[in-house]
Amino acid sequence: MTDGIAQGKAAGVTGQSLCPPIEVITIGDEILSGSIVDTNSAMIARKLGSVGLELRHMSSVGDDPQEIIRELREAAARARAVIVTGGLGPTQDDRTALAAAQAFGVDLVLHEETLEKLKNFFANLGLEMTRNNERQAWMPQGSKVVPNPMGTAPGFALRHEGCLLIFLPGVPRELERMLEESVTAMVLEHCGSGLQVSSRTLRIFGLSEAKIDQMVKGALEGLEGVSLASLPHYPENRLRITVRGKDPADVSVTLERAETYLREKVGPWVYGVDEEEMENVVVRLLGEKGFVLALAESCTGGLIAHRLTNVAGASLVLSRAYVPYSLEAKEEMGVPGDLLRERGAVSAQVAEAMAVAAASSSRADIGVSTTGVAGPTGGTEEHPVGTVFMGLAAGGKTWSQRFRFRGGRGNVKTLASAVALDWLRRFLLGEDPARYTVPWR
Amino acid sequence: MTDGIAQGKAAGVTGQSLCPPIEVITIGDEILSGSIVDTNSAMIARKLGSVGLELRHMSSVGDDPQEIIRELREAAARARAVIVTGGLGPTQDDRTALAAAQAFGVDLVLHEETLEKLKNFFANLGLEMTRNNERQAWMPQGSKVVPNPMGTAPGFALRHEGCLLIFLPGVPRELERMLEESVTAMVLEHCGSGLQVSSRTLRIFGLSEAKIDQMVKGALEGLEGVSLASLPHYPENRLRITVRGKDPADVSVTLERAETYLREKVGPWVYGVDEEEMENVVVRLLGEKGFVLALAESCTGGLIAHRLTNVAGASLVLSRAYVPYSLEAKEEMGVPGDLLRERGAVSAQVAEAMAVAAASSSRADIGVSTTGVAGPTGGTEEHPVGTVFMGLAAGGKTWSQRFRFRGGRGNVKTLASAVALDWLRRFLLGEDPARYTVPWR
Repeated sequence: MTDGIAQGKAAGVTGQSLCPPIEVITIGDEILSGSIVDTNSAMIARKLGSVGLELRHMSSVGDDPQEIIRELREAAARARAVIVTGGLGPTQDDRTALAAAQAFGVDLVLHEETLEKLKNFFANLGLEMTRNNERQAWMPQGSKVVPNPMGTAPGFALRHEGCLLIFLPGVPRELERMLEESVTAMVLEHCGSGLQVSSRTLRIFGLSEAKIDQMVKGALEGLEGVSLASLPHYPENRLRITVRGKDPADVSVTLERAETYLREKVGPWVYGVDEEEMENVVVRLLGEKGFVLALAESCTGGLIAHRLTNVAGASLVLSRAYVPYSLEAKEEMGVPGDLLRERGAVSAQVAEAMAVAAASSSRADIGVSTTGVAGPTGGTEEHPVGTVFMGLAAGGKTWSQRFRFRGGRGNVKTLASAVALDWLRRFLLGEDPARYTVPWR
Repeated sequence: MTDGIAQGKAAGVTGQSLCPPIEVITIGDEILSGSIVDTNSAMIARKLGSVGLELRHMSSVGDDPQEIIRELREAAARARAVIVTGGLGPTQDDRTALAAAQAFGVDLVLHEETLEKLKNFFANLGLEMTRNNERQAWMPQGSKVVPNPMGTAPGFALRHEGCLLIFLPGVPRELERMLEESVTAMVLEHCGSGLQVSSRTLRIFGLSEAKIDQMVKGALEGLEGVSLASLPHYPENRLRITVRGKDPADVSVTLERAETYLREKVGPWVYGVDEEEMENVVVRLLGEKGFVLALAESCTGGLIAHRLTNVAGASLVLSRAYVPYSLEAKEEMGVPGDLLRERGAVSAQVAEAMAVAAASSSRADIGVSTTGVAGPTGGTEEHPVGTVFMGLAAGGKTWSQRFRFRGGRGNVKTLASAVALDWLRRFLLGEDPARYTVPWR
């Protein structure tokens, strides 16, 4: 895993020294067993990142009190602020509050106001409040309550020798709301550096990480405070530009410049920015041109249609998709039987015929097709597993191209759908479909 | 956060004391910034868990060499084995190998055999090998190479005072293969506890986590060494049974019993076991019955076809799918225009007509259809966003059912595809399609 590309780092600032160290600890046996993936740490990182704060360290421990105590002490000794999630629930294995009290040598005390709120909460629901639930009103002495507008367990914050420790529930939707409503501001007040941070992510398809690294070398020389992160996101790659500085206007200008310089190097491969997915771009471009698309997906089995129909408004630009998974189905949709017998279903001619049939049998302006061998069986010497032909028909012309994708069935489908959408995107931008190149053959 | 269901824990053993401490460290600024969620740690935990090994600690640090060095030293002092991922790539900020050498006071040396392999790899692809790529052949002195069958960066293992440290690339598919092929065995040999661990996961669709908890209460009383974990996996829930003991035969018998007892409580909702996905079950059942399926997916937009065609061999049981995304496309596929105008595209009658048309226009034995309002717009008072009608046609009969799903467009598609597959599964098992119930209305 990599994050910066050399000259970006060299030209930039090393962010770490400008931001006081902040750490995250997540608690729960289910994280250590791999039963759940810890998404809370990343959520906290993003929320703090949005106000210019950076994490220095993340860790996860199980429900063992001794491990929690050790981890809390070590983090408090290293960091300026520590955010802890998990182990605040009503069950016996929720031991965070007691461990926090023990870690810093204070008593666990009953917080009367929280107890009242809990009692009211259960009374309003007409439910009996168990002794287990009462546990959630006990907190380390000296704690400040952090309100939880969505659940029964509040959080609490305490200070230990200049370090602010904030303990929050592990339920993601409760955590998210608490971060937004109070926690981020508390950390910022305690750690604030006054630094402005702004970032933008370029989404790139068709270049490897190493190739991007090589191509953008030197592009940002002379720009102050910029760092670049390379984020592989199979089968794409993303390039995140982050700019830091004291002055918001300077930060904004530098970010624009950095984007311009990078686009001079890798522009044609940049399909979108920030949260924009490939399917969003394709739906947007179809809409702008007033074109309607029809699909004929054999080896991709509906994945292209699925991706496009994830976009709200897809019904305005996608008229229909066929998944002619059998030979008969290909013939039925309009591919001549002679052609299928002569060339085989996996061929450039059939790909083109499928694209034409898809478009002509509907009011579509463009037809796109895939036919190939997704594997794991069905490969031949001529067409080994991973061979995919794509077709495109528009304005009375047709194009086709042969690809060879590596990996298992899922990979072949994923790559083929990505290439098909990218090919279509470039066609919509006015490029010659016959000149399309990708790093897979 | 909780991990067990109470009686499972009470009847079980506490694993920690029986297993030597193992830690995971993931490296990369993109993890600390929240740009990516660290899924590698959970993957490692699950792979080690499958052979009875448990993690005591997980942590993540950025690409700062000093942070990496500190983290490696601390983990090596605490743990018996440490697995490190990330920072082995070809770019300048991939600093793990150098940091490892510095942490334990050894030199970084060129591994000639790896260099040769890298050269061959690039030569075979007809690509130029950059000096960047050469970096991947440098390793701390005394390291043992850990082969990477899927990528250019190999891993390496080194020992420091009784602790085994294994360094692996961060690319998930490379990591997974390496864990399976060599790393798990290496750690087991180094840390093996002699304890037998066996587990099985029941995959459940149509019951909430709380409902399952309630239904299985007391089911495992009297069984020794069993623990239960409830694993929500939207929109499904999974129940993992883990049995530990000294004797393999006892462990195996106990596991069978536990599964039997649990199936007495939630059997009808269990669709599969361990790695079996819903789509695998449906493809298997279709094959066993000798049935061929055709789909007509409007609001699910190809997602059902995509899921089924992820299964190798789907082409034997799926003849074709239609995504008639416009009104014209529905009419063209065989839904009477009068019906569409009279009842509207989102109606029970159209769902049934689509299912019939899908099946009858092909050699399919069963037709399944979806039509609805995926959102975020397009809802009416009669059919608000999330309303989905499904149809099923087989043996000259038709059925349809109305559902109302909550959430955004993606959720509605996901839930609708899951319900459609589960409905089809139950039909294939001989249940009456008119009696299908799910917790969503």
